[in-house]
Amino acid sequence: MADQVALLRDAANRMRVSAIEMTSASKSGHPTSGSSSAEVLATLFFDEMHYEVANPRNPSADRFVLSKGHACPILYAAWEEAGLLTHDDVLSLRKVDSDIEGHPTPRLSFIDVATGSLGQGLSCAAGMAYVGKYVDKSAFRVYCLIGDGESAEGSIWEAAAFSSYYKLDNLVAIVDVNRLGQSQATQLGHDVEAYARRFAAFGFHSIVVDGHSVEALLNAYKEARNTKNQPTAIIAKTFKGKDISGVENQDDWHGKPVPVEKADEIRAVLKSTKRHNWQIKAPPNDAPDTKLSFGNIHLSSPPSYKLGEKIATRAAYGTALVKLGDSSKRIMGFDGDVKNSTFSEKLLKKYPDQFVECFIAEQNLVGVAIGAGTRDRVVPFC
Amino acid sequence: MADQVALLRDAANRMRVSAIEMTSASKSGHPTSGSSSAEVLATLFFDEMHYEVANPRNPSADRFVLSKGHACPILYAAWEEAGLLTHDDVLSLRKVDSDIEGHPTPRLSFIDVATGSLGQGLSCAAGMAYVGKYVDKSAFRVYCLIGDGESAEGSIWEAAAFSSYYKLDNLVAIVDVNRLGQSQATQLGHDVEAYARRFAAFGFHSIVVDGHSVEALLNAYKEARNTKNQPTAIIAKTFKGKDISGVENQDDWHGKPVPVEKADEIRAVLKSTKRHNWQIKAPPNDAPDTKLSFGNIHLSSPPSYKLGEKIATRAAYGTALVKLGDSSKRIMGFDGDVKNSTFSEKLLKKYPDQFVECFIAEQNLVGVAIGAGTRDRVVPFC
Repeated sequence: MADQVALLRDAANRMRVSAIEMTSASKSGHPTSGSSSAEVLATLFFDEMHYEVANPRNPSADRFVLSKGHACPILYAAWEEAGLLTHDDVLSLRKVDSDIEGHPTPRLSFIDVATGSLGQGLSCAAGMAYVGKYVDKSAFRVYCLIGDGESAEGSIWEAAAFSSYYKLDNLVAIVDVNRLGQSQATQLGHDVEAYARRFAAFGFHSIVVDGHSVEALLNAYKEARNTKNQPTAIIAKTFKGKDISGVENQDDWHGKPVPVEKADEIRAVLKSTKRHNWQIKAPPNDAPDTKLSFGNIHLSSPPSYKLGEKIATRAAYGTALVKLGDSSKRIMGFDGDVKNSTFSEKLLKKYPDQFVECFIAEQNLVGVAIGAGTRDRVVPFC
Repeated sequence: MADQVALLRDAANRMRVSAIEMTSASKSGHPTSGSSSAEVLATLFFDEMHYEVANPRNPSADRFVLSKGHACPILYAAWEEAGLLTHDDVLSLRKVDSDIEGHPTPRLSFIDVATGSLGQGLSCAAGMAYVGKYVDKSAFRVYCLIGDGESAEGSIWEAAAFSSYYKLDNLVAIVDVNRLGQSQATQLGHDVEAYARRFAAFGFHSIVVDGHSVEALLNAYKEARNTKNQPTAIIAKTFKGKDISGVENQDDWHGKPVPVEKADEIRAVLKSTKRHNWQIKAPPNDAPDTKLSFGNIHLSSPPSYKLGEKIATRAAYGTALVKLGDSSKRIMGFDGDVKNSTFSEKLLKKYPDQFVECFIAEQNLVGVAIGAGTRDRVVPFC
């Protein structure tokens, strides 16, 4: 364990250095938002999560959603550390012909949903967790890193309410409480207990940790695994620009590269500048390899309307949805408490396992459907 | 007090009867959503709130926002009971040429903001409360009735976070926890303690009451008045379709008129079918009668850009905003933690009292600005 802790600290710092280098090379990007979450990502990627480096879309692999998408340099650095990306790859950050963009996109094999517009990631993660638990019935877990500023977005709380209502104990939200937003301190600053109270009130098991402590993070993930029937929120107290001298915990460093020399002090504490040969835990391979496309999904019988007949669009929608449901177990309807208006309740009545009530929270509804639709698990309708 | 309680109960029941009559006449509308909130409205309008019946837009008058706008028949019934509307007026509900619409609109003198799209009212109410406390420095209070199903909307929690951050102790959110949404029971059903925990975690003083108890409601308003430096949430446990026999607390009665005969049982318990001659408490008349229009607001100096000069729109915006601020104390900028990108920080620097940081919660930002912009108090920019 002691060795592993030291190795993970080294990984976090190598990732910090790489993020500084790539944002210096691009003369733009968010090294400070990444530096606050370096230990979170290092512990997740090199101790906690089960996945295949060579095949990030393995259907049984754990999912990671970077809801604070602007912090993606540290995510690219994690995949560099894992061995999927080269240092040259990540140094192409924000170049016009590079997929290593300023915000993550699913063009990259290790990204399921595009993030960057804040507040959307937890809904997508909840959709993935719902599918894992109720559709795939797989052991894969879903980790979502949220910014503290971003937690002011109501969609986060819509997703939180949804996640506890459906007892998504395979979902872990991690809040990177680095205190500083883009233009000033956040509403709650470093009041991590306030975040914990909010998530607890929304039905989560809340754990407050020092987000730069590898030991604390590993223990928190373990506690989350042992938590049943409710999702977990790990409230990680961190510092923006952590370990970047003259930058850490200072205003006015959001979204700005820092001089590359500032990486020297971090480099100096590394035991090894060379990436470690990590033994990543293999996924359980218990999720079906569902290759769904619209090609093999069809109406069980053709529309039977007569020419000129007037049918409300919503009535035709409900009827068609059931016919699609006849042809595939993976057709799924998502509703915002209007199923008796939209006639999607027809699907609920015939195939209750293929229907998700999302209540009056439309942003979350769309996010959940997007998350559910990744990796060919479900074909969402909403 | 005993007399007043009996009078208020009578008022609530007369309002229930009227709402049933108007929705029967229109053959559409939401009598059940109104019936659950009849005592809340009766106690607010005929005991708690300070206003002028003849002039609902008195700048010093208390504000009422019906965020669950579909319940408006009961609101029209309250204004009928107050003497502003006749019974014939309210019986024109949903007629094509009537302003007594299916959802409230500000064409009506007693409505400040249109509601009906759920989740938006509390933000508007927070904007009004912000202006009352910090701009008008008036004693007026703001009451906002929210549906329980609607409380799943994230914008409610954005507004809640904003309201406690700015210590809006002149704001009272009342949640009508009638358990039933449009198509099924809500996420939290009648778990009023869960609502209380959520609002408390978001910085509110939470009070749980029997929402059909006149005494409990009056006490709660008093407790709210005595609560300083934080807003209050009154969690009112109610029953949808309350006192409508065969309808109360039953599924499948959302948004449907009920047979007008169902009003008979309610009528039978009335001491008087005639409206009471209420002595409404007068507003304090401590808010300036601000008649602002764009006509008397101007740039303090004309734009000085040279023809062909390239200026970023956001830079020109920041410069123009300050020049507008020079000409009026009522110009106000609202920001979503991007003031260093949009240059609205120029207004903050020169006129800090004319700037409101709304953090990363854009829906609430817009709602707050709308609320602030009502009754000619503030000219919002965001």
